[in-house]
Amino acid sequence: MKKTLMAILCAWVSATSFALAGAEQEMLEADRAFAAMAAEKGAPAAFAAFAAEDVRMFPGGSQPYAGRDQMIEEFSDWPEGAVLEWSPVEAVAAPGGDFGFTWGRYIYTSRNEAGEENVGHGKYVSVWRREAAGAWKFVADIGNANPDPAAPE
Amino acid sequence: MKKTLMAILCAWVSATSFALAGAEQEMLEADRAFAAMAAEKGAPAAFAAFAAEDVRMFPGGSQPYAGRDQMIEEFSDWPEGAVLEWSPVEAVAAPGGDFGFTWGRYIYTSRNEAGEENVGHGKYVSVWRREAAGAWKFVADIGNANPDPAAPE
Repeated sequence: MKKTLMAILCAWVSATSFALAGAEQEMLEADRAFAAMAAEKGAPAAFAAFAAEDVRMFPGGSQPYAGRDQMIEEFSDWPEGAVLEWSPVEAVAAPGGDFGFTWGRYIYTSRNEAGEENVGHGKYVSVWRREAAGAWKFVADIGNANPDPAAPE
Repeated sequence: MKKTLMAILCAWVSATSFALAGAEQEMLEADRAFAAMAAEKGAPAAFAAFAAEDVRMFPGGSQPYAGRDQMIEEFSDWPEGAVLEWSPVEAVAAPGGDFGFTWGRYIYTSRNEAGEENVGHGKYVSVWRREAAGAWKFVADIGNANPDPAAPE
């Protein structure tokens, strides 16, 4: 009887760990797909494709807001030629395997009216939820500045 | 048979919604307790009390780092007299009820060497996990700037 209980417990712990590792892998893949879409089709397309309907957004220097529709409107003034390079680093999943966050670094490159390039370095946290249909969508997104990397000597 | 299945399904959906609402209430209470401790004992004490051992920290203008021990070391140079007012706004829970995030606003007030007050406004996202012992600990913390509120006319 004790052995049976132990076997059940071990199976449950293994299943939980497996669900957690699986969720982390899936979230990282979603975040990498976001990064690839941002590179190919631009950041506004990537944000629209991966945001949950009830997403909360926390743009630096602006007030937070909620909703994918509002987000798409906010991104409608994305500067022409601006590029967001998104580099996912790690995912951390909920024990239940249906929620978690990824974090990584980004480089935002834009040009001013004189054509001068402006490069900003930062990091981000995206909170993800597995939707009923199985796809991962982000429910929150926030970032802030990193120091610029040291110039090569 | 169909009725029984429907009853089971309804009970399950109710239980899930209840768990979700309960988790959101608990996370908000944890975040408010964090705010109260930051007001009474200072931000370093509050961060130490509510951080998970494996917390990921994302300080603005610095590189991210991991671990509660490292966090406590980083907070050891918290400026004397600096005050963090933390105002939780909302919690969003995982369907499983064991994970989620809170967000809110903060006001950081410090004084420079000449004694002049410096006030910064911002928002934050804290990701929380229910630990095995039942307490909620935050596993990620990140914030960025909000515009200063308009001066009263």
